[in-house]
Amino acid sequence: MAPAAIVIILAVIEYLVFGFLVGRARGRYGVKGPATTGHEIFERYFRVQQNTLETLVAFIPGISLFALFVNPNWAAWIGLVYVIGRIVYFRGYVADPAKRSTGFLLSILPIFVLLGGGLYGAIRNLFWP
Amino acid sequence: MAPAAIVIILAVIEYLVFGFLVGRARGRYGVKGPATTGHEIFERYFRVQQNTLETLVAFIPGISLFALFVNPNWAAWIGLVYVIGRIVYFRGYVADPAKRSTGFLLSILPIFVLLGGGLYGAIRNLFWP
Amino acid sequence: MAPAAIVIILAVIEYLVFGFLVGRARGRYGVKGPATTGHEIFERYFRVQQNTLETLVAFIPGISLFALFVNPNWAAWIGLVYVIGRIVYFRGYVADPAKRSTGFLLSILPIFVLLGGGLYGAIRNLFWP
Repeated sequence: MAPAAIVIILAVIEYLVFGFLVGRARGRYGVKGPATTGHEIFERYFRVQQNTLETLVAFIPGISLFALFVNPNWAAWIGLVYVIGRIVYFRGYVADPAKRSTGFLLSILPIFVLLGGGLYGAIRNLFWP
Repeated sequence: MAPAAIVIILAVIEYLVFGFLVGRARGRYGVKGPATTGHEIFERYFRVQQNTLETLVAFIPGISLFALFVNPNWAAWIGLVYVIGRIVYFRGYVADPAKRSTGFLLSILPIFVLLGGGLYGAIRNLFWP
Repeated sequence: MAPAAIVIILAVIEYLVFGFLVGRARGRYGVKGPATTGHEIFERYFRVQQNTLETLVAFIPGISLFALFVNPNWAAWIGLVYVIGRIVYFRGYVADPAKRSTGFLLSILPIFVLLGGGLYGAIRNLFWP
């Protein structure tokens, strides 16, 4: 399980970094909490972090169950694509929200593979334990 | 653990489907990212997905620890009530936000049972391993 | 794993309590769903719950992997600091958003320790299984 665990921690650290960038953007663009709107660029940082939270909640069960029921090394490599895809998404969205599709696909497709593989592995395990 | 794993994956897929419905509602009601307000019906889809995210974060640890410390088959059946409850919640909220209570209760009660059972099982395991 | 499991469940229950306080604040300050803005005090409750969701998503993998690869008892004690830190954060933020730093640090530092320790333990396990 160690390789998958390392990639899970990398994905969580990446997500926390996005959170700190939102905090920095609060200061830089003058958007004081609890507000989450008020400056277009701040809102982009905020949406990147929110969307990363939204995908992380699907990614972590996906990679864990793929590692458990299929293969922990493959889980780690597929998970790394997600981590890199999120960097592409971040850079694209902050530059121009219309450019977020590539990074989004690069991070959502590994989630589908992990969930699909995990589901296959769990069903196989149910019938042939 | 396989039955609980299958239900976890079903719950995550359901949540991703709600996410895609939000994306489709963005186009249909003309609410461009990073905005999350601007059209009442879009906001309903968005709140359903956000609320599902909020419950999923409690559901996944709940079903996992119930499966680990109590019983993986019961965990799966209780978890299925959550998955169905979320569909009822989605249909109710999009039709009329005032009608969201039934689906909300049907998805929050299984979470309480899973967390309560998991807590009982973990405490029992602490004293009588 | 039982001590870490108990603290995970406590953290999830704390988070659900914050969610119910948001629901109560909806009624008290007249902010009807799907809206999430409209009254300053309501927005504070809402941001506390959202921020707790955001940290919980990092906390749960952190404590789980620290418990698995380092030590489940230490994981539980470090995790308890997070649970208490969130109470301090909640009380500070609702009283005055400018006073949220202490509770924020008290809940984010344990997450760093858990993730850092978990990463160290997983890498050690990769090379010396």
